[in-house]
Amino acid sequence: MTGRIIKRLLLGRAMPSDKLGETLLPKKLALPIFASDALSSVAYAPDEIFITLGMAGGALALTHSWQIALAVVCVMGVVVASYRQNVRAYPSGGGDYEVATTNLGPKAGLTVASALLVDYTLTVAVSVSSGVQNAGAALHFIRGHEAIVAVAVVALLTAMNLRGVRESGALFSLPVYLFMLGILALGVVGFIRKMTGNLPMAESSKFDLVPQDNMDSLSSIALLFLLLRAFSSGCAALTGVEAISNGVPAFQKPKSRNAATTLLLMGAIAVVMLISIITLARWTGIQMVDPEHPNQLLQNGVPVGDGYEEDTVLGQLAHSVFHGFSPGIVYISIVAALILVLAANTAFNGFPVLASILAKDGFLPRQLHTRGDRLAYSNGILILAGAAIFLIVAYDAETTRLIQLYIVGVFVSFTLSQIGMIRHWNRHLLTEDDPAERRRMRRSRIINGVGAVMSGTVLVVVLLTKFMRGAGLAIAGMCVLFVIMLAISRHYKRVREELAIDDDLDESILPSRVHAVVLVSKIHKPTLRALSYARATRPSVLEAITVDVDTEETQALVAEWERREIPVTLKTLSSPYREITRPVVSYIKSIRRDSPRDVVMVYIPEYVLGRWYEQVLHNQSALRLKGRLLFTPGVMVASVPWQLRSSQGAEDKYDGPSVGSVRRGGG
Amino acid sequence: MTGRIIKRLLLGRAMPSDKLGETLLPKKLALPIFASDALSSVAYAPDEIFITLGMAGGALALTHSWQIALAVVCVMGVVVASYRQNVRAYPSGGGDYEVATTNLGPKAGLTVASALLVDYTLTVAVSVSSGVQNAGAALHFIRGHEAIVAVAVVALLTAMNLRGVRESGALFSLPVYLFMLGILALGVVGFIRKMTGNLPMAESSKFDLVPQDNMDSLSSIALLFLLLRAFSSGCAALTGVEAISNGVPAFQKPKSRNAATTLLLMGAIAVVMLISIITLARWTGIQMVDPEHPNQLLQNGVPVGDGYEEDTVLGQLAHSVFHGFSPGIVYISIVAALILVLAANTAFNGFPVLASILAKDGFLPRQLHTRGDRLAYSNGILILAGAAIFLIVAYDAETTRLIQLYIVGVFVSFTLSQIGMIRHWNRHLLTEDDPAERRRMRRSRIINGVGAVMSGTVLVVVLLTKFMRGAGLAIAGMCVLFVIMLAISRHYKRVREELAIDDDLDESILPSRVHAVVLVSKIHKPTLRALSYARATRPSVLEAITVDVDTEETQALVAEWERREIPVTLKTLSSPYREITRPVVSYIKSIRRDSPRDVVMVYIPEYVLGRWYEQVLHNQSALRLKGRLLFTPGVMVASVPWQLRSSQGAEDKYDGPSVGSVRRGGG
Repeated sequence: MTGRIIKRLLLGRAMPSDKLGETLLPKKLALPIFASDALSSVAYAPDEIFITLGMAGGALALTHSWQIALAVVCVMGVVVASYRQNVRAYPSGGGDYEVATTNLGPKAGLTVASALLVDYTLTVAVSVSSGVQNAGAALHFIRGHEAIVAVAVVALLTAMNLRGVRESGALFSLPVYLFMLGILALGVVGFIRKMTGNLPMAESSKFDLVPQDNMDSLSSIALLFLLLRAFSSGCAALTGVEAISNGVPAFQKPKSRNAATTLLLMGAIAVVMLISIITLARWTGIQMVDPEHPNQLLQNGVPVGDGYEEDTVLGQLAHSVFHGFSPGIVYISIVAALILVLAANTAFNGFPVLASILAKDGFLPRQLHTRGDRLAYSNGILILAGAAIFLIVAYDAETTRLIQLYIVGVFVSFTLSQIGMIRHWNRHLLTEDDPAERRRMRRSRIINGVGAVMSGTVLVVVLLTKFMRGAGLAIAGMCVLFVIMLAISRHYKRVREELAIDDDLDESILPSRVHAVVLVSKIHKPTLRALSYARATRPSVLEAITVDVDTEETQALVAEWERREIPVTLKTLSSPYREITRPVVSYIKSIRRDSPRDVVMVYIPEYVLGRWYEQVLHNQSALRLKGRLLFTPGVMVASVPWQLRSSQGAEDKYDGPSVGSVRRGGG
Repeated sequence: MTGRIIKRLLLGRAMPSDKLGETLLPKKLALPIFASDALSSVAYAPDEIFITLGMAGGALALTHSWQIALAVVCVMGVVVASYRQNVRAYPSGGGDYEVATTNLGPKAGLTVASALLVDYTLTVAVSVSSGVQNAGAALHFIRGHEAIVAVAVVALLTAMNLRGVRESGALFSLPVYLFMLGILALGVVGFIRKMTGNLPMAESSKFDLVPQDNMDSLSSIALLFLLLRAFSSGCAALTGVEAISNGVPAFQKPKSRNAATTLLLMGAIAVVMLISIITLARWTGIQMVDPEHPNQLLQNGVPVGDGYEEDTVLGQLAHSVFHGFSPGIVYISIVAALILVLAANTAFNGFPVLASILAKDGFLPRQLHTRGDRLAYSNGILILAGAAIFLIVAYDAETTRLIQLYIVGVFVSFTLSQIGMIRHWNRHLLTEDDPAERRRMRRSRIINGVGAVMSGTVLVVVLLTKFMRGAGLAIAGMCVLFVIMLAISRHYKRVREELAIDDDLDESILPSRVHAVVLVSKIHKPTLRALSYARATRPSVLEAITVDVDTEETQALVAEWERREIPVTLKTLSSPYREITRPVVSYIKSIRRDSPRDVVMVYIPEYVLGRWYEQVLHNQSALRLKGRLLFTPGVMVASVPWQLRSSQGAEDKYDGPSVGSVRRGGG
């Protein structure tokens, strides 16, 4: 009972299936829900650009950061334009997975799916870690406990998402707008202060940023490589752009047009934010180093060491721009943290939907294709949370290290999806006759073509510059997922074929007789009940068997059996090795051998107890025997339960929290 | 198959019950097996005496160590004399548990049992830790990895003991004799070198041993307290004396006399060893400090710090006595390590036997009262190993810290056992008439009386001086065990009473009719088999039910049902919350309401797959439903298995490694 009350408090009331339509999202809610991922990237992408350039010393960051930013903005424009074609052509929400499967075949689709599953997991890990880091700029007590706080945040998100998408949407939309407002204020105030010559320099600008070892004098190839790496890192700003294309069905009608508009809006906002932040960062002279190499920062020639706590770019900017107005600083830190948590929430919307589609297609276990009683895909949510927590703990919630794994999955999915779109237009152009429509299609094909080339190029750059730094691990993760999903799909196919009804239909021939066997260990109420139930079914043969593990006990049992004049023959099976299972199984097999057309029904008396620790004390051998007998053809196993007093009330535990994971009996 | 082969290689061939008699031990094997615990204590008890005295500076250890040793030897003499009375009066091997239960009641027995279970666990942890530490004196690569090596040793002991006691005995007897020989050689050579003025001082004698903080000038009460603490620590030498009294049934006949002789022999050897080692340690000026306070040792006024690796007393002695003869040093280190491992083995003999007796008396789960197919109590062995590994890891294999928990359990059991023996003699004196026999009994009673007073006093001293340093934890552990065992006993009693057959015998009244329900989710071979088996049992009513989770799928199912003309009615249960369990359960309950004298048989088609990861992909909802239905009175649940191809051969996994833990069907 208590469990159900807690569940209700945490998750709200259960919702019947026909309420599914009501949870569709208007644009003003869809933007925060699906765009928070992409928008929040501006809270860590600039950091990555500055950190990577800073490896070769402070000068490079100052001279090249704007070029990198421009390149990233350019890619962003192309990707947004490309995905606007996607959401128009595929309003069904399979997103990249559907596009790749339909146009390039199931293996390509599965590749995209693997990439996206890894990507969603990393979105949660990266966003929450970065969010906690940003919150640390205002809430100093978080520092040094980032990992545990991040895990707690993921747990909270999990609980909220188990409640269902609609309420999360309403709750989560406000902070995204507050974040936009904050960055807008940051940009405007910063610009005015710069123009009036009133903009203070950042705290980190007073340090000397020395190059890492082997980085002090770069060859031009090495420099190019470093710039490409900074570009790869900066492309973290593009993560989450695809979220809308996976979430089209959650939009209000007209779904495609609303989604395309939201996408454009999101792209524009992200670009403006990114450029503002990079510009302000250069004006205030922000210098960033990898937290693993703090000794790059010198003050008067001496490494600043552990005493200096490096804030994020956004945090340092807020300190400069809102210098003398501390509420502004706290505001930026808090809303940045909040939008990053919401970005993680995007993955909590996307992952379970994708997992459910994959389960429906037979690539993942069927339990994932089940909405819980709050209409959310409970199992998918829990798996995502578990994987993200694993990553956070393994990488100690360090954003910079997690990001190395991140971008590759996004661009695998971008590239395959865009190639798929080219095929899509090619196919449709074969049958389309309307010249205006054909023109529109050709234009879309060009856009997707540019998108494919662009994202393919970025993918190669990311792989070249990041493979050894983490992208390789992400690729490995995708490969493992790919192989597992393929294996699951083959397994389901094999089972389906094996279970399909043959034409000869031999299963409809009835067994000639039923041979009933009641298993007896002691003479008590459960045994008597099993005997009377077995007799009630009026089998062709009925006998009781007991296994002679302890001769003394067995003799006492036989004596009592006779004394009570129980009207069923009791057979004793010998067991020199003190086992139960083997003698019973070989006896049952001998019955089957003697009369192969009989079916054997084994009645096992069981006690039902209310508490798990009571279960440990009983029924162990009955459970093992049941499991073993199922392997023997022509045998049914009937549990005859005896409900002990402690079982009363405990039955409710059985249809409690995990009801949502149940779908079909016997399947 | 592979699992069984590995099991055979590790554990040897299975043995039928009638070979049990053959594993009895002659004295020359019983001494090493049961006495190794007590004898090996001399490898750590002197260390504890020197460390404790050394807390107040080097002088105290030199002046008082022999007094402490004398007091310990005195206690040893009394305890050995007392236990010789025990083994004569109680040859059945329950040892202290039996003595306390018989004479002082079940609660006292349970107290002793809790103490002994804790004590056995600590024996393993302490002995293995100390053994690894001793081995480190010769095998330097062990140092710094003590905990992991100790865990590996426990794992090895576990495997050996799962093979059974006899072979362990033969294998384990030699090292104990080698150890005795080693200590004899150490004593003789040391004595000769001392007499010839040729005995080198120990390495640690060159240091200054300064008192711990607040220990530099002791009041006489504080000094007395410290001496008592040293005495408590020294009493670690007595651990294991009771082992023989718990193992009497393993002796060859005459069991009692052989056990008493072995006990006396063991006591004499232990006393000689302890006195030799303490004397030699004083001659060579050995100084020991707690590894947690290394700064007590000064060299030229400067703390020696982490650079100095403190050897055990035995290790340092070997270095002095066998100075210039390094094989002697290595020999002592290796045999000391080996005998300590064998001491741990004593617990592997005692713990499972005691657990089995407790399980038979209903204080522990029944699975513990089962010999494995190698006639060893497999479950008890595994539990002991798990608990010991936990302690080793928690205390990082530091002997000195583990010993603080150790001694209290031993003396709880000593004291209660001796008090019980006084009662035993009182009772027998009431009925005995033969004057010679009465004289013998009175003498025994006096011996046990002295033993009770002595061990009670030591128990109080141990509690006073060690409670906060670990003995409190051991007491807490015993209390937890005590409460758990009492609860288990009450649970079994309650269940037994609930299951006992009443006089009105209402269970023998047959249900009037059988209402059969077949659960259908899809139409495939398993469903058809379940239907045909259910029809074969010719129930009064037969119907198929399906739960409407997805309307489209349900309609298709109904259509196919009709098309195939299956001769059973298919009923559809609606499920607005997409559940399986609840609609089925409420339907079944409605059947029961309508005809309460019917019994309902629910047939559930199940697939049987060979691999656990395949199981994850199927049957989840069937399993949950089965579990839930067992709570409903008047319902039987029959599994109708369909064996998929992958299940072939996998059935053997079910009667593999854990067969030994199965005892009785249905219980």
